[in-house]
Amino acid sequence: MRTLPDIAIEPIVRAALLEDLGRAGDLTTDAIIPAGQTGEVAIVAREAGVVAGAQCAAWAWKLVDERVQTSFEVADGGRVAPGTVIGRAAGPMRGLLTGERVALNFLGQLSGVATGTARIADAIAHTNAHVADTRKTVPGLRALQKYAVACGGGQNHRFGLDDAVLIKDNHVAAAGSITEAVRRAKAAVGHLVKIEVEVDTLDQLRELLAVGADAVLLDNMGPAQLAEAVALVDGRMVTEASGRITPDTAVAIAEAGVDLISVGWLTHSARVLDVGLDFVAA
Amino acid sequence: MRTLPDIAIEPIVRAALLEDLGRAGDLTTDAIIPAGQTGEVAIVAREAGVVAGAQCAAWAWKLVDERVQTSFEVADGGRVAPGTVIGRAAGPMRGLLTGERVALNFLGQLSGVATGTARIADAIAHTNAHVADTRKTVPGLRALQKYAVACGGGQNHRFGLDDAVLIKDNHVAAAGSITEAVRRAKAAVGHLVKIEVEVDTLDQLRELLAVGADAVLLDNMGPAQLAEAVALVDGRMVTEASGRITPDTAVAIAEAGVDLISVGWLTHSARVLDVGLDFVAA
Amino acid sequence: MRTLPDIAIEPIVRAALLEDLGRAGDLTTDAIIPAGQTGEVAIVAREAGVVAGAQCAAWAWKLVDERVQTSFEVADGGRVAPGTVIGRAAGPMRGLLTGERVALNFLGQLSGVATGTARIADAIAHTNAHVADTRKTVPGLRALQKYAVACGGGQNHRFGLDDAVLIKDNHVAAAGSITEAVRRAKAAVGHLVKIEVEVDTLDQLRELLAVGADAVLLDNMGPAQLAEAVALVDGRMVTEASGRITPDTAVAIAEAGVDLISVGWLTHSARVLDVGLDFVAA
Amino acid sequence: MRTLPDIAIEPIVRAALLEDLGRAGDLTTDAIIPAGQTGEVAIVAREAGVVAGAQCAAWAWKLVDERVQTSFEVADGGRVAPGTVIGRAAGPMRGLLTGERVALNFLGQLSGVATGTARIADAIAHTNAHVADTRKTVPGLRALQKYAVACGGGQNHRFGLDDAVLIKDNHVAAAGSITEAVRRAKAAVGHLVKIEVEVDTLDQLRELLAVGADAVLLDNMGPAQLAEAVALVDGRMVTEASGRITPDTAVAIAEAGVDLISVGWLTHSARVLDVGLDFVAA
Amino acid sequence: MRTLPDIAIEPIVRAALLEDLGRAGDLTTDAIIPAGQTGEVAIVAREAGVVAGAQCAAWAWKLVDERVQTSFEVADGGRVAPGTVIGRAAGPMRGLLTGERVALNFLGQLSGVATGTARIADAIAHTNAHVADTRKTVPGLRALQKYAVACGGGQNHRFGLDDAVLIKDNHVAAAGSITEAVRRAKAAVGHLVKIEVEVDTLDQLRELLAVGADAVLLDNMGPAQLAEAVALVDGRMVTEASGRITPDTAVAIAEAGVDLISVGWLTHSARVLDVGLDFVAA
Amino acid sequence: MRTLPDIAIEPIVRAALLEDLGRAGDLTTDAIIPAGQTGEVAIVAREAGVVAGAQCAAWAWKLVDERVQTSFEVADGGRVAPGTVIGRAAGPMRGLLTGERVALNFLGQLSGVATGTARIADAIAHTNAHVADTRKTVPGLRALQKYAVACGGGQNHRFGLDDAVLIKDNHVAAAGSITEAVRRAKAAVGHLVKIEVEVDTLDQLRELLAVGADAVLLDNMGPAQLAEAVALVDGRMVTEASGRITPDTAVAIAEAGVDLISVGWLTHSARVLDVGLDFVAA
Repeated sequence: MRTLPDIAIEPIVRAALLEDLGRAGDLTTDAIIPAGQTGEVAIVAREAGVVAGAQCAAWAWKLVDERVQTSFEVADGGRVAPGTVIGRAAGPMRGLLTGERVALNFLGQLSGVATGTARIADAIAHTNAHVADTRKTVPGLRALQKYAVACGGGQNHRFGLDDAVLIKDNHVAAAGSITEAVRRAKAAVGHLVKIEVEVDTLDQLRELLAVGADAVLLDNMGPAQLAEAVALVDGRMVTEASGRITPDTAVAIAEAGVDLISVGWLTHSARVLDVGLDFVAA
Repeated sequence: MRTLPDIAIEPIVRAALLEDLGRAGDLTTDAIIPAGQTGEVAIVAREAGVVAGAQCAAWAWKLVDERVQTSFEVADGGRVAPGTVIGRAAGPMRGLLTGERVALNFLGQLSGVATGTARIADAIAHTNAHVADTRKTVPGLRALQKYAVACGGGQNHRFGLDDAVLIKDNHVAAAGSITEAVRRAKAAVGHLVKIEVEVDTLDQLRELLAVGADAVLLDNMGPAQLAEAVALVDGRMVTEASGRITPDTAVAIAEAGVDLISVGWLTHSARVLDVGLDFVAA
Repeated sequence: MRTLPDIAIEPIVRAALLEDLGRAGDLTTDAIIPAGQTGEVAIVAREAGVVAGAQCAAWAWKLVDERVQTSFEVADGGRVAPGTVIGRAAGPMRGLLTGERVALNFLGQLSGVATGTARIADAIAHTNAHVADTRKTVPGLRALQKYAVACGGGQNHRFGLDDAVLIKDNHVAAAGSITEAVRRAKAAVGHLVKIEVEVDTLDQLRELLAVGADAVLLDNMGPAQLAEAVALVDGRMVTEASGRITPDTAVAIAEAGVDLISVGWLTHSARVLDVGLDFVAA
Repeated sequence: MRTLPDIAIEPIVRAALLEDLGRAGDLTTDAIIPAGQTGEVAIVAREAGVVAGAQCAAWAWKLVDERVQTSFEVADGGRVAPGTVIGRAAGPMRGLLTGERVALNFLGQLSGVATGTARIADAIAHTNAHVADTRKTVPGLRALQKYAVACGGGQNHRFGLDDAVLIKDNHVAAAGSITEAVRRAKAAVGHLVKIEVEVDTLDQLRELLAVGADAVLLDNMGPAQLAEAVALVDGRMVTEASGRITPDTAVAIAEAGVDLISVGWLTHSARVLDVGLDFVAA
Repeated sequence: MRTLPDIAIEPIVRAALLEDLGRAGDLTTDAIIPAGQTGEVAIVAREAGVVAGAQCAAWAWKLVDERVQTSFEVADGGRVAPGTVIGRAAGPMRGLLTGERVALNFLGQLSGVATGTARIADAIAHTNAHVADTRKTVPGLRALQKYAVACGGGQNHRFGLDDAVLIKDNHVAAAGSITEAVRRAKAAVGHLVKIEVEVDTLDQLRELLAVGADAVLLDNMGPAQLAEAVALVDGRMVTEASGRITPDTAVAIAEAGVDLISVGWLTHSARVLDVGLDFVAA
Repeated sequence: MRTLPDIAIEPIVRAALLEDLGRAGDLTTDAIIPAGQTGEVAIVAREAGVVAGAQCAAWAWKLVDERVQTSFEVADGGRVAPGTVIGRAAGPMRGLLTGERVALNFLGQLSGVATGTARIADAIAHTNAHVADTRKTVPGLRALQKYAVACGGGQNHRFGLDDAVLIKDNHVAAAGSITEAVRRAKAAVGHLVKIEVEVDTLDQLRELLAVGADAVLLDNMGPAQLAEAVALVDGRMVTEASGRITPDTAVAIAEAGVDLISVGWLTHSARVLDVGLDFVAA
């Protein structure tokens, strides 16, 4: 499976820790917990879901105190039930307490995305469609959120404005036609850049099929129109349905026969997965 | 109202833009939109809510192209209905399109937090309680999310581990008693640091009242027990209810008489506010 | 005692090293000292004082060459006489020499602040007052200097503009009265933020006592007026004396009965503690 | 005169502001001062001295609010008496108050260094010696402190380990002799790097004169021995006296005939210059 | 044409300036040029070539002194002869001189890449092939160098490891076969990621054609074998020749009928374009 | 020999890796290579040259995966023939493949500079001249390129605008004469800063000899004129020839008797050294 490079994660976790520690550090823990005390915690799912972000949690504790050791019994992408022990951290009690919130914030947020993704992926498993993410991500966390989508069984759409062409209505308007917009894009980009075009109507789709592209984004179409579109395309390009799709509407859309349904909800509105720490008696 | 310093916002918006632009920039727009074309967009609420993050959206466009001008008709904290024009951006069309997603991601995420906060604040307006945030924030966005909470009518809890003492169960366990934990904290911190203590039972509360603190966090108590606790405290410290409170459970808890209800949901699970752009004919 | 998070210290020490190493590194040492030579140094106090900053010195050598080992015989906060060995560093001679100046600059500066603080703390030990720092710190070193103040037995005032309210004359002037200024502050800030107000006269103090706050800063008052103020307050808020207090004037002010005397001199003008290295014969 | 590049200053001032603003910004000012209020302040010397750091103060206010305008009536290097107006700042009152402390911290610290330097420079003006700084600087502020030394009439020693060779006792010990140490240095460095050697005795000086260098650092010698050393050198290299020189001992040493006296005190122990703001009635 | 986002360029130019200015700035210019002197320079090509990097040069001067104005008469991608004036800069003489070397280093390096690219592009203009770059770029300058390749008429290969799949011999070895390697890649990546596979022999090519991919990299094949490979592919995928291609060998390879020739030389070994400044009499 | 501080190298290598990994990391390797597979590679010179940058290559792999171990059989500055094994890397196959290109880009670029330097150094070994670099370096890599020059047997000219004075024609024009320019420089800089002056004619050289400086840069003179200049100088200052010197013209210039020839080509136009990886059978 895709991995997250440590050199990309570490600065993000470091920034989150500095955000929490501020200038004076953990006033409470430093005042109350003796420096020499050690302890152990179990990281426990409080509800069912899919795990993502173990590596971030490990970094949070490691950056607070390199003597804290973490191990994970459920790998990213694994399913948990309420009460499942995801992993453990052990070491100086001060470090365990000071790193707790940041570790859980990463684990909860990313597992939340993975869990939301899996919810839709499961619901459409009987269709040929995959669920994909969008660029509607939380600022600063795009790579992590897209990784969490993959952990949940989703597929990654483009990561940014620079790794694929996606021609939308305003681009078409500026170019004068889909045909001209696609022509300009093909002339401009390299041989390893794919081109997708957003269409709102079947007429636009027909124009696109004539000029050709790698994929079509069928925007805000209902299941019936989507099915018609899929039939028109007839395997000549990847078909993607999009437009305010939620867990409630996903199944009907997937059953229309598209290859992909892209869902902003995965990354802009999925709720946290409830994960907590249980302190083990020393 | 509290403001967000530009020197704190700018680096966060800059990082979000670089995350979207990657190494090669906006392939689609550069290929299709002529450099000289200008345009104007209205920033429009697609659903009802409370606005937060206008300043971030303005920075996003300004950093992409300093010639893009933004103006806002609804200030942060203002209420919008579906269709309300929040503001406008005008300038080079390339800049408008390239900055669109990042601007909307900030505006949607922060307005989502403000809207979720207002939802609870409205629901408990008939009580003496205020809704407050927690440290369960999205990594990297704590200051922005807490600002959004304030925009939605909520109150900010501590910003991190260093600006107030919050003694929790593990601290108490390490110190041996609430009394000893509070004693250690009072001895360690300066005269401008407040001390709050988490209690689970009324017995713990009685012990705390004997030693004294600025506030008590009543953790995972039901409305009846909370009312009993409030009566016990009798105005001697600020009372805060906490523990997996959601919009559904908030009212009963607030009606128990506490001063504050702190709600992690505001920042870890509130969904986006749907905000979009309408391109105005040139 | 309060600790300094390594993730906060390391970037500051790193920047100081890069400032000293420049682009070409240690020309002298690289030219003259063989790469394989090892050595050991004792870190020795050349005068009496209080130590602070051992952790920074250790980081300086570690970042220059991770093979350099440091150990400290006097912990931060410990007292030293002329000739006392504070600690030792051992490893490659190149690393020892290249890191020497940065290590000593941190140790000398922070021990100087701790020593100056202890000088006042000792002088007022027979009173009820504590000595506290201010925001008059050296740019970039606030957290480290405030840590050094704690090492010297001082108490930390607020760390910045965001962790407590301190209402000064210009705020009062803008609000129209102390009463209105305090009212605005109470309405704006959360339940874990303390409020202190600066007053110049006993009349202002009487107005403040009526409206109430957590602490009062008695600015530029002489011992007699301070004693009168303390009597007026009568334990209802923390009393702090301030205004160009030096080691020479501190005792009389402390004897006036205030809880705190805050002294900018601790961080803006305390001189270095003379600390040097003695190279041990190999 | 030497200038400070803005691209070098701006990040240092920015970091100092973020250190003061923290996560939540200026709680007091935001709560009390109306956003629309404007004002003007005079930056006033409270005691006699030499100014340095006007550019930093200007940056502090500009970064807080770009609408704040600053102008300076006394340029860096200029002398002030108690009450002299150094400059003015005008604009939004919030910006004036929020930037005040950081602006004054830079101005006070750097003017303190310039004033201390001028005190010695004035005292030795009747000799041929110049006063110079060292690498015993406050971490993070070396370039600014050395600029302040120049403002006070002092001369800059090397800026770091990489822009000149300075051979000290441990280098000599490792090489076996001054002659060998100088030989290694000459073989290693480029044609634009000067070489200075520290000597403790006249015998060492004689050995150095035989091998030749650009400058000699006469360490911890009294005036009589220094005079003898200067006579021995007889103009063949620059002579520099060094070793715990203070304002009190500087004159006798300078009168011994050396070209330079280098004084760590300038940057590690000079006290702040007292500079304050007077708010002008609107 | 593709543009370079200013927020991506500015930090790179800023770092290059700090690298040149060091801690003390431009000693020579500050010592000799009066602060008030202004001037104007023409940026002149000393030899024929293609321009790239005007925006970087403009940033260099702007960051040194925002009063320096730059204008360009030849846009990026334009051809110049010896003596052609590319642009002009005017403003404070200190700024012009201090920024000169960094401005010219960017302009020379990037124009060198553009010129080298154009040399090959011109030579193969009679074929159907385009010249493309590789990931063999100068560390830290990949986006700028690839932009320069585009200015010279070349096509950009992938920008990094994350925007396309390129399966090489070691990947094939680990997977056991081309077929299995391609299968794994198709299963792992999203619908907007293209897949290219490196082959060394026609047998490998036949295996690849059976499994299918977007492009084939024909590694280290001579013109005859390339022609055979192109015939085999018969338009079913993009064909790219690669392997130590230089300006001398490019034509024969391009004439073999491939779609692309990718040339590491463009970015790892192309020499600078000689560009200088002519100071205009004031 | 001069070393490169790790704290200076690591951020440059880290930036280069992030440039290559982008947001999603190594798509190909993650898709195809099993996480547990290990391997070993030999780093092999494909052509003759001088090695520089081993430390950068080691950092590249270490930052990708700290389990990758590197060792070098040829140290920086060592000569290699085609086929010489420079070093080895062993560890997880994913890390080896993901770090390969960045490691080789550093090693190839820096060894290219060292090799180009050695080519000239060898050619002029029979003269008294040394080859030196200039400030015409690749933006961001100055310290590394100058280190590579030293590895190739060259001498380093100044590292930036701040570590020596170099008076050029525009400085002389602004001052009115060489004499006045040198006078201003001597008055401005410290005792450890050398002064070099560029001259175009023997008359200028005579004026310079009268006023005195540490070195003279003889710009764009042919061998005959250089010999005349060297005779005029007669050992009173260091003589440096400069001006578009290439490997082809270097010998004649060096034979004219100058101490140094400075060659921009070393760093702005030297081509890469071809270095590759051979995977060793597991």
